[in-house]
Amino acid sequence: MKDSEMRFALGVDFGGTSVKLALVNERGQIKARRKFVTKDVQGQQGWLDRVAQEVGELLAREGAGKTIAGMGVGVPGFVDYERGFIYDLPNVPGWTGVHLSDALEKRLNLRARIDNDVNAMALGECTFGAGRTYQHAVFVTLGTGVGGGLLINNKLYRGAHSMAGEIGHVSIDMNGVKSPTGFGGVEQYVGNRRIVERIVKALESGRKSKMDELVAGDRSQISPKVMKDAADQGDELALEILDFVTDCLATAFASITYVLQPQAFIVGGGVAEEAKLLFQMLRKNVDKRLSPHFAQKIEIKPAELSSDAGVIGCATLALLE
Amino acid sequence: MKDSEMRFALGVDFGGTSVKLALVNERGQIKARRKFVTKDVQGQQGWLDRVAQEVGELLAREGAGKTIAGMGVGVPGFVDYERGFIYDLPNVPGWTGVHLSDALEKRLNLRARIDNDVNAMALGECTFGAGRTYQHAVFVTLGTGVGGGLLINNKLYRGAHSMAGEIGHVSIDMNGVKSPTGFGGVEQYVGNRRIVERIVKALESGRKSKMDELVAGDRSQISPKVMKDAADQGDELALEILDFVTDCLATAFASITYVLQPQAFIVGGGVAEEAKLLFQMLRKNVDKRLSPHFAQKIEIKPAELSSDAGVIGCATLALLE
Repeated sequence: MKDSEMRFALGVDFGGTSVKLALVNERGQIKARRKFVTKDVQGQQGWLDRVAQEVGELLAREGAGKTIAGMGVGVPGFVDYERGFIYDLPNVPGWTGVHLSDALEKRLNLRARIDNDVNAMALGECTFGAGRTYQHAVFVTLGTGVGGGLLINNKLYRGAHSMAGEIGHVSIDMNGVKSPTGFGGVEQYVGNRRIVERIVKALESGRKSKMDELVAGDRSQISPKVMKDAADQGDELALEILDFVTDCLATAFASITYVLQPQAFIVGGGVAEEAKLLFQMLRKNVDKRLSPHFAQKIEIKPAELSSDAGVIGCATLALLE
Repeated sequence: MKDSEMRFALGVDFGGTSVKLALVNERGQIKARRKFVTKDVQGQQGWLDRVAQEVGELLAREGAGKTIAGMGVGVPGFVDYERGFIYDLPNVPGWTGVHLSDALEKRLNLRARIDNDVNAMALGECTFGAGRTYQHAVFVTLGTGVGGGLLINNKLYRGAHSMAGEIGHVSIDMNGVKSPTGFGGVEQYVGNRRIVERIVKALESGRKSKMDELVAGDRSQISPKVMKDAADQGDELALEILDFVTDCLATAFASITYVLQPQAFIVGGGVAEEAKLLFQMLRKNVDKRLSPHFAQKIEIKPAELSSDAGVIGCATLALLE
């Protein structure tokens, strides 16, 4: 199919650090990219001006002869998807109570959709990535926290008030770690900082580990990546903590499987990239926590779109919904 | 609206103890009932003969001039809803691998739908009972185990293989009670027998309680109902155990709320009937386990159809789907 026969959309992945823009075709292929640093622009007006400028330049160079279905924006916070409204972006000041879709539509004369960034990634992965063959899937992204998005009947499911998919708050221990979202939420055990704390505590207690060698004794450099590397080399402590982390995740995955029975979990984010061992241990622990009827039917797969899941998913909001 | 202007359907609630049949109109009203004892019939053929006879008599007396949309059957076990196929009924011998919808359609010349009994109850409650105003709700039934059914976008959601909604297996403690379905499944703590064991253990350890008076010292008569009665009278041990039970349920409800964000939980089954105090404590414990954004938006309501939820829901399968 030629470009002139395909529909295109703009994806805008609005992150706390950078804003990435891309022109994406209906097969999920990126045809052009732009990027700017979030703190280089001032407030909503500065952001809108800069996005309008970048979009203008993108379309001037690449838009000729192409049908543009609209634009999708993924933001790091709470939105009302139906209204294209941002309640709040916890890590970006000045974005409380913003009708962003209205503002973008007026400014750019393009249909605009606004969603939570993790929902956009979930849509990208489930349309063009590892989830493309499923009608029912759960997307999970690992990082500072644990985010999620649900594909139900081939559509992103947002729940009653656009806030579904908060998998990081699923409790794995009713008497566990207290946080503003309850007790024992899984991200209190598997978030990047929690993993690092656990490793450092074990090292400080005198446990021997290759991880100390890998950071040349500088424990401030310990990271989930260091744990993965040490585990790949057979380090006992790293394997022990990786087993614990994947077992915590498996507890949440098993609970979600009993509730929703999806076809698959698609797992992405830093610690899950190039992480064969992590997926092996996750599989083993999920199997241990499900009856065979459920275990046999659930797949666990790595995400495929990596850092492009965001912009591709954002564009998909405009292409599909 | 007159009966002659309404559609009707037959609901067949196939329980381990009895089989209840009802003729139900499109407003969820029961116009006639029949019932027989499950063990009075022999195997599939005996069951089909008896159901055909009861349906024949029902329709001969009540069917004249009525449009019958079909029949729905709720069974206590695993089914493939799309194929109308029973995999297995764990508590009723002789029902492994049965194409029940085909058999019923041939025998009765009525369109037949087969579903899990809890799904049928969920559909009944969410169409005509406490869930009728919601598009997104979770139905929960308390008893020997904890069953569930999901209403998503105003339809019953069965997951990838008709097995979604198994809320009783949601883990509330990754290191908790082991069972064939994993570790720490909520029904291992709040199932009727688990509640009784907990009470008896406390009494045997020397705890004083009105519950001993209520059963005149015969601890074999201790039941969740006795606990509820004692709690209503302010008994300390009964209140303590009711708080524990509702907190276990609240842990599972909070996890499900973070994943699905439904509008409401509809809770039915023995221990949840006429249980004002149970609902108060459940509400308090759910609020404790959710961030305010989620807590404010979730409702928790008693089921309304009581023991009729089954037949009404079964008929609804034929009326709606």
